[in-house]
Amino acid sequence: MIKAVLFDTFGTIVDWRSSIARESAVFAKAHEILNFDGDEFARRWRAGYRPGMAKVTTGERPWVSIDVIHRERLDEILPQFGLSMLDETERDHLNRAWHRLTPWPDSVAGLQRIKSKYLISPLSNGSVVLLSTMAKRAGIPWDFIFSSDMHRAYKKNPVVYQNAIRLLGMAPDEIMMVAAHNADLEAARNEGMRTGYINRPTEYGVDQTVDFEATSDWDIIANSVEEVADGLDCPLAW
Amino acid sequence: MIKAVLFDTFGTIVDWRSSIARESAVFAKAHEILNFDGDEFARRWRAGYRPGMAKVTTGERPWVSIDVIHRERLDEILPQFGLSMLDETERDHLNRAWHRLTPWPDSVAGLQRIKSKYLISPLSNGSVVLLSTMAKRAGIPWDFIFSSDMHRAYKKNPVVYQNAIRLLGMAPDEIMMVAAHNADLEAARNEGMRTGYINRPTEYGVDQTVDFEATSDWDIIANSVEEVADGLDCPLAW
Repeated sequence: MIKAVLFDTFGTIVDWRSSIARESAVFAKAHEILNFDGDEFARRWRAGYRPGMAKVTTGERPWVSIDVIHRERLDEILPQFGLSMLDETERDHLNRAWHRLTPWPDSVAGLQRIKSKYLISPLSNGSVVLLSTMAKRAGIPWDFIFSSDMHRAYKKNPVVYQNAIRLLGMAPDEIMMVAAHNADLEAARNEGMRTGYINRPTEYGVDQTVDFEATSDWDIIANSVEEVADGLDCPLAW
Repeated sequence: MIKAVLFDTFGTIVDWRSSIARESAVFAKAHEILNFDGDEFARRWRAGYRPGMAKVTTGERPWVSIDVIHRERLDEILPQFGLSMLDETERDHLNRAWHRLTPWPDSVAGLQRIKSKYLISPLSNGSVVLLSTMAKRAGIPWDFIFSSDMHRAYKKNPVVYQNAIRLLGMAPDEIMMVAAHNADLEAARNEGMRTGYINRPTEYGVDQTVDFEATSDWDIIANSVEEVADGLDCPLAW
């Protein structure tokens, strides 16, 4: 009997690549940068994400929030795109583009359906302000938010999944983790959680090398949040 | 510039006394208890709340969630009301009446208005499951939830307010604490937060001895969540 369904957010619920491409293109245009490739900018920015978190997880540096990791990488890549002239206010605003990511077309409708039967929350590497701002803007109807800064750890650190289970006070198999990333589900399954895979084969665009399909027998295997709702026998929405 | 508004929940947003009186009366009737006083039952149950948390705060016992504190007190008072015969399932269901408390009439409308301008969250001694279940049932539109089990501490332990400030990554005076309890606001002000008082003179019924009025010059002094919304210049709702 599942009681709560937790979702990876970046890539699973929201389409970070097109959101970041769109917002960065606005800055490039304002600064008259020609031939700016927003998609490349988004992918290059995102490439700093895992290495940034790894330094925290290995203990190479103390806890820093994802906003700091995003900002350091932003400062690193701006010169590569001719955008060194962005001032502090512009950099801060652009960094918060990660707070304004837009959902995949199926996400909000699917989450509304799942919410009608279960508690729903992100289990994300985002911060509480990032995740709640994003949800507020886009109408993502979380019941509550599990953010990395509450755990002071990033996935796939087992501590993140263990904390979520402890806070919910439920048996691990009463909780389902849903993600577009097989490794996330593997870490959740290791803690005894149920698992749901959503195929998002265009998440990384030309950089995508993995997660084109489920690589294990996850409890649900789907192509959208709506299909996860189907798999969980949630009533149809409007 | 305020960015987030945090709310005490029991007594400030929801009316625990009438909710508990109503639910306990159902059990009493089912077990043919005559002259059952649901209001007295609610107040007697609630009287175990502060002493229960105090044992955790003083270190007399290790962390336990509010559900455990509620349940221990329930087991203690059931015999006093002729309800010793309640079995485990009934006790568990009755204990979760605290997950099903109903809002004061002004709460949801006021929170919707405040949510349109600010991030809103409880800063409550409830657990994440208690607070999210309550919100889901009653349509309380939290953006996210700060629960005692995340901090592993109860108000007025300063750790609770300090953790909230840290997690929000905001200056303390960008955050407002709203409560029907002067002592809660005093603790919040000690950490540099802004404060909003809501007068709830009937919260405890005949047991009420304090909090009939603001005892300090809080930033906002109101008689409802709607009046807090007015004080924060939030647009009128439908």
